[in-house]
Amino acid sequence: MPVNLAIPDPATLLAIDGVRIGTAFAGIRKPGRRDLLVLALDPGCAVAGVFTRNRFCAAPVTLCREHLAAGGDIRALVVNTGCANAGTGAEGMADALATCDGLARLMALAPTAVLPFSTGVIMERLPMDRLLAGLPAALADLPAGSWAQAAEAIMTTDTQAKAYSHQASVDGHAVRVTGIAKGAGMIHPNMATMLGFVATDAVVHADVLRTLTREVADGSFNRVTVDGDTSTNDSFVIIASARAGNAPITSVSEPAYAELRAALLAVALPLAHAIVRDGEGATKFITVQVEGGRDIDECLRVGKAVAHSPLVKTAFFASDPNLGRILAAIGYAGVDDLDVGRVRLHLGDVLVSENGGRAASYREEDGQRVMRDAEILVRIELGRGKAATSVWTCDFSYDYVRINADYRS
Amino acid sequence: MPVNLAIPDPATLLAIDGVRIGTAFAGIRKPGRRDLLVLALDPGCAVAGVFTRNRFCAAPVTLCREHLAAGGDIRALVVNTGCANAGTGAEGMADALATCDGLARLMALAPTAVLPFSTGVIMERLPMDRLLAGLPAALADLPAGSWAQAAEAIMTTDTQAKAYSHQASVDGHAVRVTGIAKGAGMIHPNMATMLGFVATDAVVHADVLRTLTREVADGSFNRVTVDGDTSTNDSFVIIASARAGNAPITSVSEPAYAELRAALLAVALPLAHAIVRDGEGATKFITVQVEGGRDIDECLRVGKAVAHSPLVKTAFFASDPNLGRILAAIGYAGVDDLDVGRVRLHLGDVLVSENGGRAASYREEDGQRVMRDAEILVRIELGRGKAATSVWTCDFSYDYVRINADYRS
Repeated sequence: MPVNLAIPDPATLLAIDGVRIGTAFAGIRKPGRRDLLVLALDPGCAVAGVFTRNRFCAAPVTLCREHLAAGGDIRALVVNTGCANAGTGAEGMADALATCDGLARLMALAPTAVLPFSTGVIMERLPMDRLLAGLPAALADLPAGSWAQAAEAIMTTDTQAKAYSHQASVDGHAVRVTGIAKGAGMIHPNMATMLGFVATDAVVHADVLRTLTREVADGSFNRVTVDGDTSTNDSFVIIASARAGNAPITSVSEPAYAELRAALLAVALPLAHAIVRDGEGATKFITVQVEGGRDIDECLRVGKAVAHSPLVKTAFFASDPNLGRILAAIGYAGVDDLDVGRVRLHLGDVLVSENGGRAASYREEDGQRVMRDAEILVRIELGRGKAATSVWTCDFSYDYVRINADYRS
Repeated sequence: MPVNLAIPDPATLLAIDGVRIGTAFAGIRKPGRRDLLVLALDPGCAVAGVFTRNRFCAAPVTLCREHLAAGGDIRALVVNTGCANAGTGAEGMADALATCDGLARLMALAPTAVLPFSTGVIMERLPMDRLLAGLPAALADLPAGSWAQAAEAIMTTDTQAKAYSHQASVDGHAVRVTGIAKGAGMIHPNMATMLGFVATDAVVHADVLRTLTREVADGSFNRVTVDGDTSTNDSFVIIASARAGNAPITSVSEPAYAELRAALLAVALPLAHAIVRDGEGATKFITVQVEGGRDIDECLRVGKAVAHSPLVKTAFFASDPNLGRILAAIGYAGVDDLDVGRVRLHLGDVLVSENGGRAASYREEDGQRVMRDAEILVRIELGRGKAATSVWTCDFSYDYVRINADYRS
């Protein structure tokens, strides 16, 4: 049961002019589920992506990097679920190339105009016959495909599809943003088995879109963690279809850049949160807000240490205000000169700890009350400076173990 | 149920001349359990320790550091279980001082001759009345106390006491080593809620003992992980009672130094392994052996990434050879220039992966066969150099969640 995560209402998902969607039931892993997605881009779209830093990155990740670096127009994205095509060596690379070739042939494109994405089990070969056989069906679906279907077609252990739209004014023009994401486990800052695709009709220069994509990823997907594992396949892509009529954004210092970034984050952040809300076995949605750091980096280190700690996460599952575990995580976060006497820990509106120990005003029933909520704010004041940031995580339950012990069976 | 962990046979535990043991049922946390330990040291013992790097280190850890740095003779160690006296601020420091004062008064020592240790729940005050009331009982027990009772008196969520002895020849003299340890969760390299006390009757210069203690910790307790959490209270202490009659060891380059280190590791390593075997919810004991690294540091990084991964650990729990998860962990271990095409992964005697993908010879039933064992060797060849090391961990089961969700209740 995801934590306060609504099923996307297809009526709220805005079509993005220049981006067409087709999905298919290709039977790549299990029959009877939508498991293949094609996003067909009209000419003139700018595309940028950020990818996993895992050295065992999947073959499709390597190809995405190459095709984006080649600098030509990207005209299609193809995504399969059920098999990650990672840890598959030279054969995996051949399969990813054959996927691009197959789609390029059907769409009369160069193979380098196709970006491939895979998610699912690692170290197994893609069933190429079924994947290639599914492509014509996905293309036939193009006129009718919806973002809701696209979100469904990329799910693995997700219990729910994830899609959001937002409309904003950029440079005085109405701009639309729609995004989808998948991911429920192996989720960790710096990209995890997380796929995110966000499309906007704004007009942005390709170079600027690259910076924008990194900034949006850093402000959203790179701030969430489920289990601390960094996947082989993480990819986050922004497509700008250049149909909104705004003056092309050519510099990060333009006001329109900030407007568009805010609009993109208005979709990317709820998508990233949706991944945590649907985290494997999650029963609580936890915001770890770190304030008073010397810089963002040390705030992030503290936030991630707390958000990754299995002991902290099981305590949240149990609604047990065993809050010393949070102090312990702050203490081992690697801020070497941290003065623990200046650290203050709040749980929701309750001051839990100050002066290196339990706050005099703290009563366990107050901690207990906050711990029972499904949405919990952990606020940590470091007392060192003015930097602040947040990371988001979920609790750690029996179901996390069940899901990951059973994933392949 | 711990993994292949025998209950210590009191008959095998060697007394160490110069070290006397007293325990008591002080009712510090729960009535009816042995929860207070005093190790009384005769004059002339050398003592050295290594401690947690957690910034929220417990008050007793701070005092241990101070009393060891003061350089006077250490004449007693006092250990309580049930309460960690960490995250307790100035009051916690006063409590730790009062513990030393109380024992020093009863034994007619300076308070700085006492090293205090606590383990248990964080951010709660020590019940000083019961602790101080228990000290006379522990001292009264001194003539009769055994290492087996000492091991029992320091347990928290441990299901079994942990104690080993070893006899070796050092400089041609028979030398005895006996050690006890506790710890089952919040276990992570760099010291975790782990207490380890090893005593030997060897004669060692105090300076040399400090180096020896660090080397022995690095080769044993700093190589094990249960959940990646680094505790506030970890302490590892070696006592050398100087009764064995060997020529005093005054330099790390003496052959006797290497002999004694080997003898100490012969106790410290099984103690560290015992902590993993008794890891919270453990059903498997896993050795991650990393070979072919450029240096030990990168071998350790890879070993720890694999040993910490919740996804890897749940797969071991399920006996599911979902071995791509191991490749993913190798990939995100932070060896930036790792050539994954040179990495070879073995599970027991089965070659699983090479050339960046599944080994041609690998059959899933072979992986499955190894995964069903209670003792599993994961061997990773990095193909970069000659350095090698091992880390040890356990699997991640429903019971880990149950134990940590219920710990305080």
